[in-house]
Amino acid sequence: MAAKLTGNACVGQSGGPSAVINQSLVGVIAEARRHKNQIKSLLGAIHGTKGILGETFMELLRIPQSRLEKIAATPGAALGSVRHKPEAKDCAAMLEVFKKRDIRFFFYIGGDDSAKAAHIIKGMAEAAIPKYDLQVIHVPKTIDNNLMESDHTPGFGSAARFVANAVRGDELDNRSLPGVKVDVIMGRDAGWLTAASMLARRQPGDGPHLIYLPEVPFTPEQFIDDVKRVYAERKRCLVCVSEGIRNAEGKLWAEIAGQRLYEGLKDDSKNLLGKPKKDAFGHFQLSGTGVLADFLTGLISNNTDISRVRGDTYGYLQRSFPGFASKVDQREARAVGRAAVKWACQGRVGSVAIKRGTGKVYKSYLELVDLALVAGKNRKMPRELICPGGHDVCPPFRDYCLPLVAGLPETEAFEEGD
Amino acid sequence: MAAKLTGNACVGQSGGPSAVINQSLVGVIAEARRHKNQIKSLLGAIHGTKGILGETFMELLRIPQSRLEKIAATPGAALGSVRHKPEAKDCAAMLEVFKKRDIRFFFYIGGDDSAKAAHIIKGMAEAAIPKYDLQVIHVPKTIDNNLMESDHTPGFGSAARFVANAVRGDELDNRSLPGVKVDVIMGRDAGWLTAASMLARRQPGDGPHLIYLPEVPFTPEQFIDDVKRVYAERKRCLVCVSEGIRNAEGKLWAEIAGQRLYEGLKDDSKNLLGKPKKDAFGHFQLSGTGVLADFLTGLISNNTDISRVRGDTYGYLQRSFPGFASKVDQREARAVGRAAVKWACQGRVGSVAIKRGTGKVYKSYLELVDLALVAGKNRKMPRELICPGGHDVCPPFRDYCLPLVAGLPETEAFEEGD
Repeated sequence: MAAKLTGNACVGQSGGPSAVINQSLVGVIAEARRHKNQIKSLLGAIHGTKGILGETFMELLRIPQSRLEKIAATPGAALGSVRHKPEAKDCAAMLEVFKKRDIRFFFYIGGDDSAKAAHIIKGMAEAAIPKYDLQVIHVPKTIDNNLMESDHTPGFGSAARFVANAVRGDELDNRSLPGVKVDVIMGRDAGWLTAASMLARRQPGDGPHLIYLPEVPFTPEQFIDDVKRVYAERKRCLVCVSEGIRNAEGKLWAEIAGQRLYEGLKDDSKNLLGKPKKDAFGHFQLSGTGVLADFLTGLISNNTDISRVRGDTYGYLQRSFPGFASKVDQREARAVGRAAVKWACQGRVGSVAIKRGTGKVYKSYLELVDLALVAGKNRKMPRELICPGGHDVCPPFRDYCLPLVAGLPETEAFEEGD
Repeated sequence: MAAKLTGNACVGQSGGPSAVINQSLVGVIAEARRHKNQIKSLLGAIHGTKGILGETFMELLRIPQSRLEKIAATPGAALGSVRHKPEAKDCAAMLEVFKKRDIRFFFYIGGDDSAKAAHIIKGMAEAAIPKYDLQVIHVPKTIDNNLMESDHTPGFGSAARFVANAVRGDELDNRSLPGVKVDVIMGRDAGWLTAASMLARRQPGDGPHLIYLPEVPFTPEQFIDDVKRVYAERKRCLVCVSEGIRNAEGKLWAEIAGQRLYEGLKDDSKNLLGKPKKDAFGHFQLSGTGVLADFLTGLISNNTDISRVRGDTYGYLQRSFPGFASKVDQREARAVGRAAVKWACQGRVGSVAIKRGTGKVYKSYLELVDLALVAGKNRKMPRELICPGGHDVCPPFRDYCLPLVAGLPETEAFEEGD
């Protein structure tokens, strides 16, 4: 183990915010205060790597704890976030800033891309001549729940709580005014968050009646057949679909739908749509558009005689709705922030991972895992949690997910035979 | 005043459900129990007028109050709702069912269309030879807040609470990852619910930065200019738009956008979209599609060089999200149900309206108003609550709306200069 470092620390937030990303930030601040012999100041980088490159920081140790507690309970990245993929050149420049400001601890709160950035910077610090002593810890955050080595990720439980509750509401609405309802849920590469919609079920026959995930190829023909079958039986059908559903070749249906629509337009009408776009990571833009829901409802409208067909795209509310976080998620997100500082001060490097105890009662604990195991990687839903046919989630997923949302509002409805 | 009637009662729910529509139902049931000398049984019509026509009822007086309390707290129409515009023929058939079952009290929970149906049936009962004694009371319900004679409507406060909180979350998200964000909010004919987004502001500079309502004609050119102006100043822009925005001729932009897109498609690509549809009332379908948000974000993407442009359509969550109702709204929705029964048992007919006391502290009271004043009518936002230029709401709206949402989750953010 390396000798205990002394110097300044830097913390940043990256990627899509969550309802508990500030819990982790506050965990870092609170623990840093307990290590004043090693951490002289804690600089919050404004908008993540962008703030480091531009040297826009705020000193965090001076913020009163009472205010921090309010910030911890607030969604959104309090320091500002960033969707910027740091090139090697940027990482080198960041390292120069660290050297200049004697930053010896770097805590980066984010997903797999952030783990990758942390991994690159750590590598550069080690390779520098002379070697620059830097403790880098990746603090996990993603509503997508797709980090390797983790049982689950901070942010997921709260987003899952929102989704399960929203789908429960939609189930009640769909009973009230029966028809086909399609809800598009976040999750580019993994279906965890969409799968959480199954927690909305209370009674046999409750929706969601169909759940489609990125892990299983999606075909319009099968989708239409599935909806027809459910509708014939129940006179209504509630469908939850991941924004990340793909065809057999792995191409996103959102992208296919957007491109088809754009290409289907006459030349003088192309300006009716924004041109399909990719983000800084080369990802096709999935969120912030209703194109997938509209494509799916169009499939049903055009291929069945069902008259009431509606689609909603839950969008950014899933990660940003205030006052609805999971208490378990809040507590764990705080803990990963604290653990990161504690381990860094012990001279350790890596990515904090939440693990689950084996007992019957839910319990979690933290481990520090190798950055390389997490960086740029994606943990999918295991096939055994997805029902044969690929249009539902298996019951054990409920046992996995329920403790993470920490309770849902009670609802009660009349049932058939009442 | 008519002699006190004795007989059976019927209650139904109609139109889009809300988070508190079942409070009114439970209010009707609870009060009916107190009038057993007049109300012998209380039949819940399953799916409103459809249930009356098909004689599918459930007896409500036997349901234990403890279970009713849970149902009251649950969104969605517990009896099932309906979007069916009863023709004169249907109303005549409903009257026959009432006669056959000795139904002497009819409580119809819904919006202006439901008030109209109630009004028609009451007229038919009076015109019948012999005259059929029937006490008809319209119980107000609409998240749109657009009923004449009311200060506000049951359902609005809870939907406004959801919207204000969702926009607050979006404001925090938009700070984290700056760009243009467009949120489309329900409200076909009136901007009340969209206006509630202004409650999301905590500090000067907070979003929403622009608010567009159906009451003021919307032009794409002005919209683009407004967004450019805000973005130039703040490097981000949060926009709240009513789904009911119209052009100078009063045509819905959602309809224009949908039609343009459909007509802009080559013939062999028309099947990529469901054909634009109208509902049972001849209304163009506004909800359950992302077409307006996508049109508006397309305008910004195609006419500015802003790279991050996103749109969300809040959709059905606004009326169905469990566990987030306004306590004031819950209490008032219960009260209008109780008052309806009390007044019917006194031989009165009409529509229950919530009025506001004149004191500094918020207080409401109920009145029974003429059905004809409410039936099929629409109360718009008064022009003095909309700022000159038409892209914002005036400060007095906050005083109007804030008591109705009954508090929002606390949030806290770092501010410039922190």
